[in-house]
Amino acid sequence: MRIISADSGAALLNDRFDATSIVAASAVLVDSPYRLAKRCIAEPIFSRIADSHELIVHELELCQELLKETGADVVHLDMSFGGLSMEELSPIQLANISGKARGYLLKMLPKLRKMAAEIKRAYGVEVLAIGKDSVPVRIAELTAGAHAILYSAEMVVAEKMTMRLGLPSKCYARKVESGIVLHSLAPAEHDIAGFAADDKRTLEKVAFSELINPCARGFRALEFTPNSNLVE
Amino acid sequence: MRIISADSGAALLNDRFDATSIVAASAVLVDSPYRLAKRCIAEPIFSRIADSHELIVHELELCQELLKETGADVVHLDMSFGGLSMEELSPIQLANISGKARGYLLKMLPKLRKMAAEIKRAYGVEVLAIGKDSVPVRIAELTAGAHAILYSAEMVVAEKMTMRLGLPSKCYARKVESGIVLHSLAPAEHDIAGFAADDKRTLEKVAFSELINPCARGFRALEFTPNSNLVE
Amino acid sequence: MRIISADSGAALLNDRFDATSIVAASAVLVDSPYRLAKRCIAEPIFSRIADSHELIVHELELCQELLKETGADVVHLDMSFGGLSMEELSPIQLANISGKARGYLLKMLPKLRKMAAEIKRAYGVEVLAIGKDSVPVRIAELTAGAHAILYSAEMVVAEKMTMRLGLPSKCYARKVESGIVLHSLAPAEHDIAGFAADDKRTLEKVAFSELINPCARGFRALEFTPNSNLVE
Repeated sequence: MRIISADSGAALLNDRFDATSIVAASAVLVDSPYRLAKRCIAEPIFSRIADSHELIVHELELCQELLKETGADVVHLDMSFGGLSMEELSPIQLANISGKARGYLLKMLPKLRKMAAEIKRAYGVEVLAIGKDSVPVRIAELTAGAHAILYSAEMVVAEKMTMRLGLPSKCYARKVESGIVLHSLAPAEHDIAGFAADDKRTLEKVAFSELINPCARGFRALEFTPNSNLVE
Repeated sequence: MRIISADSGAALLNDRFDATSIVAASAVLVDSPYRLAKRCIAEPIFSRIADSHELIVHELELCQELLKETGADVVHLDMSFGGLSMEELSPIQLANISGKARGYLLKMLPKLRKMAAEIKRAYGVEVLAIGKDSVPVRIAELTAGAHAILYSAEMVVAEKMTMRLGLPSKCYARKVESGIVLHSLAPAEHDIAGFAADDKRTLEKVAFSELINPCARGFRALEFTPNSNLVE
Repeated sequence: MRIISADSGAALLNDRFDATSIVAASAVLVDSPYRLAKRCIAEPIFSRIADSHELIVHELELCQELLKETGADVVHLDMSFGGLSMEELSPIQLANISGKARGYLLKMLPKLRKMAAEIKRAYGVEVLAIGKDSVPVRIAELTAGAHAILYSAEMVVAEKMTMRLGLPSKCYARKVESGIVLHSLAPAEHDIAGFAADDKRTLEKVAFSELINPCARGFRALEFTPNSNLVE
């Protein structure tokens, strides 16, 4: 079963470790054995946290874009409604959700259902609201996080600034020859990861060190500084 | 403290990774340091998912059978009511449970209480509704899962078919000389496992590969095919 | 950001693995990268489980004591109210908490708010009710647990008794040359630990072995016996 999924991930953190903006979004194509993306698209978003409830629409657009390129059997969206088809998801199913979150979802729902219907018509593929149960959503999150590291590094180099990047839940970053891997540290996900290719060799131009986010158990962060050894 | 417990585990999965039937049930005797079964009984059940709410009665029967063989100090049942004795569990405690599940439990309760009373009378042993908090229940689940691998392999060999088996939550299978071990991947359970002895050497007659269940985070699956290298 | 936090941890267990008393309390100073305490104070408490709801006040006193020694930027208290400042925490926020626990918190709240106000006045530092989200609270828990091992060992030696000590959630003990380390086994906490220095070399006078708490998944325990090889 070939699955396309998307997620946004990694957040800039201020001095008090509050998230201020979401850095990247990514869509992935995942196939058996469902450990890594077979194909992905990613982009920097640097979206304010306050606007993050709107990202779900953009995530579905990224799925649509990847679907056009590669095709798939099903789309997994990062909304947790037990795997219900987006076309069947009505305001009634949102009744259990508390106050503000429900308001945002109700606002997004018509747009999301319309897009899901288009995807069904154009590609014959269902969009499922499976969220936290989906491994492809997790791989999309890790892939977005890996790209967020590259985008942050680029900004650090361009602006000669320091930066603190909060990684997605339960993962750690490992630099490899060709880019950066974000390995899951969640239980039973030891072989699940996201990858971003560092084609521009940006990671050679920054130094980064890992720390624990003290205000959010299970979350790690990276602190970036321009590489002082670098002669420019 | 010698504890007897039982559980059912591992499920056949269809092409969409929906569970279609539960494969095995097992009862275990566990003693300090509570990492592995000291003794177990297991059986293939291939019970339809729709009927799985009735398995709890059969699990208690398996406990009773093992109790007759080995004795124990207490029985842990896979029902999560904070360790309450089954004899004290009344319909009132079930009030918090939502719709359908409560209906099933109410239906099973008289039978379970009767069996618990018999066990108390015959062996002087309490049956506790401890469920998810119990390590012996977890070991029974892993032991059932290990046996499910053998039963699935037998069916694959007999029917010359392929099969996809969903393992219990957060574990992975490792083939050893004498059989199959299901190691827990849950946090702080790295030394907890279930084992099934492959006396008939069935595992030599099949090939299996591991994959991630993409629709259920934390769950792995095995895909079986008859071993094509085998001259029959 | 330098964070002070405190917690109580590790419990004596009876033959049925019920906790009977909390053994130790500890306050820690934690700084980036937030993996270990930079500084700690600890004390044996051997407080009855029935009285454990009062420990939170003592934990804040320990924070205050450490604050006097070392200073800090913020205090993390083991109460889970989303990181709300203790000064802002009113009986209204406690409305969602169920019966008995709320009664205890309501009883403690005036005292805790008074202490938080004093800390704010004296050191200009906020006390946050961040609880389960806080890594420093977790490090305090592991540090209390490590000291609990020493205190238990001392009692075992003094009283020539055996003892069963339940460790904090998801961790294991490792004896090192200079003392005892409690390593977290929680997801993504593989490099987080608590330490207690065994200056009196008490651990050489006891034998201890690790077991799983069969009635509480994720919890390990140690069984202590006086070291029989020891000539006294």
